[in-house]
Amino acid sequence: MVFTSDFSLATTGHGTYDISAEVGSAVRNSGITTGLCNVFTHHTSASLIICENADPAVREDLEAWFKRLVKEGDPIYTHTSEGLDDMPAHIRSTLTPVSLTIPVRHGQLALGTWQGIYLWEHRRRSHQRQISMTVMGE
Amino acid sequence: MVFTSDFSLATTGHGTYDISAEVGSAVRNSGITTGLCNVFTHHTSASLIICENADPAVREDLEAWFKRLVKEGDPIYTHTSEGLDDMPAHIRSTLTPVSLTIPVRHGQLALGTWQGIYLWEHRRRSHQRQISMTVMGE
Amino acid sequence: MVFTSDFSLATTGHGTYDISAEVGSAVRNSGITTGLCNVFTHHTSASLIICENADPAVREDLEAWFKRLVKEGDPIYTHTSEGLDDMPAHIRSTLTPVSLTIPVRHGQLALGTWQGIYLWEHRRRSHQRQISMTVMGE
Repeated sequence: MVFTSDFSLATTGHGTYDISAEVGSAVRNSGITTGLCNVFTHHTSASLIICENADPAVREDLEAWFKRLVKEGDPIYTHTSEGLDDMPAHIRSTLTPVSLTIPVRHGQLALGTWQGIYLWEHRRRSHQRQISMTVMGE
Repeated sequence: MVFTSDFSLATTGHGTYDISAEVGSAVRNSGITTGLCNVFTHHTSASLIICENADPAVREDLEAWFKRLVKEGDPIYTHTSEGLDDMPAHIRSTLTPVSLTIPVRHGQLALGTWQGIYLWEHRRRSHQRQISMTVMGE
Repeated sequence: MVFTSDFSLATTGHGTYDISAEVGSAVRNSGITTGLCNVFTHHTSASLIICENADPAVREDLEAWFKRLVKEGDPIYTHTSEGLDDMPAHIRSTLTPVSLTIPVRHGQLALGTWQGIYLWEHRRRSHQRQISMTVMGE
């Protein structure tokens, strides 16, 4: 069995956006009891991560740490025509996943207690981010 | 066809733990000849990596390199209440996968000669790490 | 339904090699309309990434940025017998994926407009890189 569901997310700059509810809902709607759920984002300047879901400071620290690691305005960049935040966004989107595959058990996403699913926006401005879910199993 | 198998691994601090045998065994037990095997860990302070399996020094260097990149006690962190190693563990678990999908061929994991599968513990203390395998195919 | 297709790619040193056409072709040949395509490389010194496909400068900047982050000749390395570029290659292959799972829709890879699929060679010398594709769905 294969079930698909897509949605679009409006982002408003750098940071993580919780999509756990959308993905969990797709799994429940699929009618699939046991298998896998893939979540995919169709961009090269955003990512999908699984991260600690209890203390928002974790994701703020993650953002701060990545901003320092992948600097805007780094003189090493030659691809600079699309804005200061563009090349860092491509690097961040390479260092972190655009595709997550998560087990499905008992008709639900089998995430750990502290695991949330986040779209991570790597650009400053607002964007519409496309996300596709594919649930397969029996 | 879908086959699942889960296990728990006791870790004793930072470092890589070879789980290739457990994953290979699940694939053989599945009876699936051709398809995919997903391995997933249900935590935000551990990862799953595919790494060189011949010289243990590779994984020791990897640990040393990541420890220097993602420092304990970095003044950028605000999430500090769960220990010096906690925020670095979350960052390391974002920089490396928690989910691996590996092809199955001829009833076996189709890894390269030098590829091993490792759980990477990012915390100092002992932990029980949950790992779920999902084999799908025919 | 499960469809598999494998190929080998000759690389000639550091850099990204576009494999989008090969992966797209496997999906079309599979006859699968809806599902997932996994792409896997059987090595610990190369990766598979999804990256911006319009301006080659993006991938050149990515290469330059990673070369600076993961230095050759770093005194932290103890695994040095296989060449200056060997340990950096293992680190780079851990920081970036060796396995990509991409949705299939309408009998085609459902990539975003700006997403290309690249094998990323992390070693200086020529190599033959093995790539396996597994398409599952209906």
